[in-house]
Amino acid sequence: MEISLILVAVAAIALALIQGMDIRRIKVADAKVAEIGGYIADGAMAYLKRQYKVLAVFVVVLAVVLAVTPGLGVTTSMAFVLGALFSVIAGFCGMKAATSANMRTTQAAGSGLEGAFRVAFSGGSVMGLMVVGLGALGVGIVYILNPDNLNILTGFSLGASSIALFCRVGGGIYTKAADVGADLVGKVEAGIPEDDPRNPAVIADNVGDNVGDVAGMGSDLFESYVGCIVSALLLAVVWGGQGALLYVMGLVAAGIASSIIGILVVKLVKAKDAQFTLNMGTYLSSILLVAVTFFLGGLLENGISAFGAVVSGIIAGLLIGKLTEIYTSDQYKPVKEIAAACDTGAATNILSGLSYGMLSTTWPILVLAAATLAAYFFCGDFGIALAAVGMLATVGMVISVDAYGPVADNAGGIAEMSGQPESVREITDHLDSVGNTTAAIGKGFSIGSAALTALALFASYAIAVDLESIDILNPRVMAGLLIGGMLSFLFSALAISAVSRAANKMIDEVRRQFKAFPGIMAGTEKPDYAKCVDISTQAAIHEMILPGLIAIISPLAVGFLLGKEALAGLLAGATITGVLVAIMMANAGGAWDNAKKYIEGGFGGGKGSDSHKAAVIGDTVGDPLKDTAGPSINILIKLMSMVALVFAPLFL
Amino acid sequence: MEISLILVAVAAIALALIQGMDIRRIKVADAKVAEIGGYIADGAMAYLKRQYKVLAVFVVVLAVVLAVTPGLGVTTSMAFVLGALFSVIAGFCGMKAATSANMRTTQAAGSGLEGAFRVAFSGGSVMGLMVVGLGALGVGIVYILNPDNLNILTGFSLGASSIALFCRVGGGIYTKAADVGADLVGKVEAGIPEDDPRNPAVIADNVGDNVGDVAGMGSDLFESYVGCIVSALLLAVVWGGQGALLYVMGLVAAGIASSIIGILVVKLVKAKDAQFTLNMGTYLSSILLVAVTFFLGGLLENGISAFGAVVSGIIAGLLIGKLTEIYTSDQYKPVKEIAAACDTGAATNILSGLSYGMLSTTWPILVLAAATLAAYFFCGDFGIALAAVGMLATVGMVISVDAYGPVADNAGGIAEMSGQPESVREITDHLDSVGNTTAAIGKGFSIGSAALTALALFASYAIAVDLESIDILNPRVMAGLLIGGMLSFLFSALAISAVSRAANKMIDEVRRQFKAFPGIMAGTEKPDYAKCVDISTQAAIHEMILPGLIAIISPLAVGFLLGKEALAGLLAGATITGVLVAIMMANAGGAWDNAKKYIEGGFGGGKGSDSHKAAVIGDTVGDPLKDTAGPSINILIKLMSMVALVFAPLFL
Repeated sequence: MEISLILVAVAAIALALIQGMDIRRIKVADAKVAEIGGYIADGAMAYLKRQYKVLAVFVVVLAVVLAVTPGLGVTTSMAFVLGALFSVIAGFCGMKAATSANMRTTQAAGSGLEGAFRVAFSGGSVMGLMVVGLGALGVGIVYILNPDNLNILTGFSLGASSIALFCRVGGGIYTKAADVGADLVGKVEAGIPEDDPRNPAVIADNVGDNVGDVAGMGSDLFESYVGCIVSALLLAVVWGGQGALLYVMGLVAAGIASSIIGILVVKLVKAKDAQFTLNMGTYLSSILLVAVTFFLGGLLENGISAFGAVVSGIIAGLLIGKLTEIYTSDQYKPVKEIAAACDTGAATNILSGLSYGMLSTTWPILVLAAATLAAYFFCGDFGIALAAVGMLATVGMVISVDAYGPVADNAGGIAEMSGQPESVREITDHLDSVGNTTAAIGKGFSIGSAALTALALFASYAIAVDLESIDILNPRVMAGLLIGGMLSFLFSALAISAVSRAANKMIDEVRRQFKAFPGIMAGTEKPDYAKCVDISTQAAIHEMILPGLIAIISPLAVGFLLGKEALAGLLAGATITGVLVAIMMANAGGAWDNAKKYIEGGFGGGKGSDSHKAAVIGDTVGDPLKDTAGPSINILIKLMSMVALVFAPLFL
Repeated sequence: MEISLILVAVAAIALALIQGMDIRRIKVADAKVAEIGGYIADGAMAYLKRQYKVLAVFVVVLAVVLAVTPGLGVTTSMAFVLGALFSVIAGFCGMKAATSANMRTTQAAGSGLEGAFRVAFSGGSVMGLMVVGLGALGVGIVYILNPDNLNILTGFSLGASSIALFCRVGGGIYTKAADVGADLVGKVEAGIPEDDPRNPAVIADNVGDNVGDVAGMGSDLFESYVGCIVSALLLAVVWGGQGALLYVMGLVAAGIASSIIGILVVKLVKAKDAQFTLNMGTYLSSILLVAVTFFLGGLLENGISAFGAVVSGIIAGLLIGKLTEIYTSDQYKPVKEIAAACDTGAATNILSGLSYGMLSTTWPILVLAAATLAAYFFCGDFGIALAAVGMLATVGMVISVDAYGPVADNAGGIAEMSGQPESVREITDHLDSVGNTTAAIGKGFSIGSAALTALALFASYAIAVDLESIDILNPRVMAGLLIGGMLSFLFSALAISAVSRAANKMIDEVRRQFKAFPGIMAGTEKPDYAKCVDISTQAAIHEMILPGLIAIISPLAVGFLLGKEALAGLLAGATITGVLVAIMMANAGGAWDNAKKYIEGGFGGGKGSDSHKAAVIGDTVGDPLKDTAGPSINILIKLMSMVALVFAPLFL
């Protein structure tokens, strides 16, 4: 089975590379489009290179620590480096494809929707295929080389998690600093539209979409994917021995195959309705996976139980996705009410969004609790891991849709800046909006799987440190719970304040340029884009370090100072509070964003009205919540669990 | 010892009544002052009466349920009614005193600071003395009548907790609906100053200070006080038998006596500096308590351990208070930075406040974790309860200072509305600001003690339902943790949205009056104050019911459906997340409030500048967070623990 896994993984990588080359083979005819696309691509690459330099130092240091830690050693350390490397490669390829596809989507939109859709989706699918391909390949290689010591796999997963945290935090800071800076000075103060080439921060803003929403998101799901597979493999042995191990690998391989089929269907089927095509691809992958999983049950004595656990995960993911949509789409009451609250100003808008954000945790948490109980009922702790794998098995398809959005968004920006006809922008706007609904499902999977993976890792940790029970009545566990819960808040605070600081620098720079070079606003002078790109880059690199270190050092510190029970409490506390905060931030931010768009669509006075001004404030508040702090917490809880699991031998 | 406890309690009640009569004996000379004071007093009483009617129904229903529940019975039910009744009496007397003292403070301020300070403080101290007097008296009576069944005490405590929740939620909604409504239309839209008699919502706003900050706060601390004493008594028997029981009673009696001495010193010492006098009284009470506690140790074999636990609690309370001050006073960096963030608009102000609010949980949580570990080290679970009692023993003094603030605030409003000379308002403003620092210590005690009490109740619950361990690896416990954590979010969401809804009604009404009666703004026509009072009253009564029922029904539902382990998880999850959310909301709200005042003091452009407008938005957002949702959560976590504890026989 491990060979099939590797073959399917290689197929996914090959398909990704072919698609990437296909995109680059398309010639960009319009010089202006090529120039602007080039700025964005260069900015993105410049950022990645600087980020990699910092990460290289970090990876080397941690690799040495792992190599010399008693109970770990060089093999774990090498697996760690491999995990980090694969994450970087996936991010690099995905970003390269996205920054090639964006301008070609603009160009294709000149001759119609269908061609543009195909290019944008191809661009996104490179990231999707690379993530699942490299993730599965890495797990397969590490397993084949160390079939008797599954703990080595945690090293690979730790590599993926550490890179993910830095990329998510750094990317999130980058994109939001640029976005907030561009909006506050450009749109609000100077009154020029979004993506106006006179705005000095506009290139940084478009680069941000790539480094945050493509590379950051990809590394995030790479670590989720690897994390849940590894936790499932670890618990498989305990639950059902070799058969269960093969079952997990089969499940992963089936998921990749289903994703490939889904992606190909979306690409090849001739469909006028982009939304329908994306939905079809997504659902088709899930249905194929469920069908194959059913037959995979033959590998197990108790195949139907495993099937039940996997299906609980898939259903929970779909439900959480639907709930996310209800709380963030303008088709439902919450966004409409938030938009209505803008009528009485920014304060009532913020309050309405905050309270809906908090309210929106209720049902997803009940779904998660039910899924946890159901999955455990079917296969114990292994069931919880299986549910997570079930959610994430088709993540190749999910990421493709997720990454397609920023490509279309970028294409619109390039159209605007290069002065394409209005019809081009209309097509790219439509493409962008089409991905949103399907992306909501992806977010549901991402949050749900993070929680389930963290719970599964938690169980693995308990086994690894020989804890038969983790008793809340033990004051150390309680202290750990409190500290863990607090870490989610601390981490969010650091992420938000980092964005604020970086955005302030951006605001100062944009104001300075407008003041020093009046020709910019008149359109006779070119703004200094590179300076703004540089500010975002520096700020992101600089600000990602502290939160990253806290995530890695806190579990170790608590483990050493207060013991393994306290560390267990910390992991549980961080998971519970983290899931709540992540859902709240994602939904409040999404709802503010769409309430603003709803008003821009004409509700409550439309663009330029007082309601709209209030809505813009809500959107700006929501930006770092939904795109920096929220997603980073998803990684935080898994990374801390992974750190605890890898260093478990020290706490024995 | 129980007799001494009752005697001290009766002394406190007697002193409260004497002070109340003393205040009412002062004649209000100025007819205008008396008229406006009368409006406020009438509005407050009208609200209380309607609230009591609803509560009466609730109390009767729950009393019947308790009486017929197997394992409980009529005695528990009667104790419950007594708890509810005592809470109502304390609230009623405190509010009566506050609404008598406010106008007399205005009057006294005409002849100088010292007299005004004395009247305002006397007004506040009635609430302080009634709370501790009735709390201790109730516990004493129930104990003397049922010395062999301490569980009956949980009924008394449940009564206090239920009333507290409704009063806190209802009072919080009342005060913030009026405040937000008065500010948004009066200050922002019409441009008239705070407390301008032309604002139709101005009386409702002043009534709100009484029902929210006096009656709501009093009922809150009444339940904290009773809750921690009851949990300490329950655990005392397990830890050290009869001696420990007497120790707790002695500690409570010593606390009341120390508070009485502190209050008398503040009242009688001739001091020009109000701040110094309040601080002296507060610290004096604490020092006296520590001294007496040391000697009380003689009652125990291991008196020094108990002393250690009590002192850990007191130190933790002081530290959390100091930390609260650092995050909310304009003397420190956070408020200054939040004020500076107003320079780039409301969005950056909100983000800065949110991130500082989240950040501000770090140290208090570490302090709490350390206090928990220390207290447990000294005396096990009993130590945790002792730490809570240590914090709250001098709450009589703390409430006096807390309730003094709104009295001074009201006095300022009455001065404004009755057209007193500027010097009067200056004195009341000074008095109001003086209480703030000392009140921060009170908040620290309140949050810290809520967490410790919840932990102690949690331990009592585990004993009551025969759980030897509460294992997080059990998926039911994990599901409970998730659901409990979610309840804090759900509850906050409901409280915030209730304020928004009520404030919107208020906004509509104030706008309507301004439009329909142009004479109001011209000063030739009187606004319809009663209509606004009525809107706040109705909204508060109506909106308090759903959150209240959720708090009572959720633990029962989870206990029945998922079992006692899941219920234990729920309590732990709610406690951890609740403490975090409560600290975050209290500090973010306080910081926004003071950032606004800091700007009004001249920073960043002063009143009327763009910075100030941004700061007002932050303050408005913070209002329901710090005065409605945040404090209600403190009660929520204890009420749910108390419900679980009382109904424990059902889950055996």
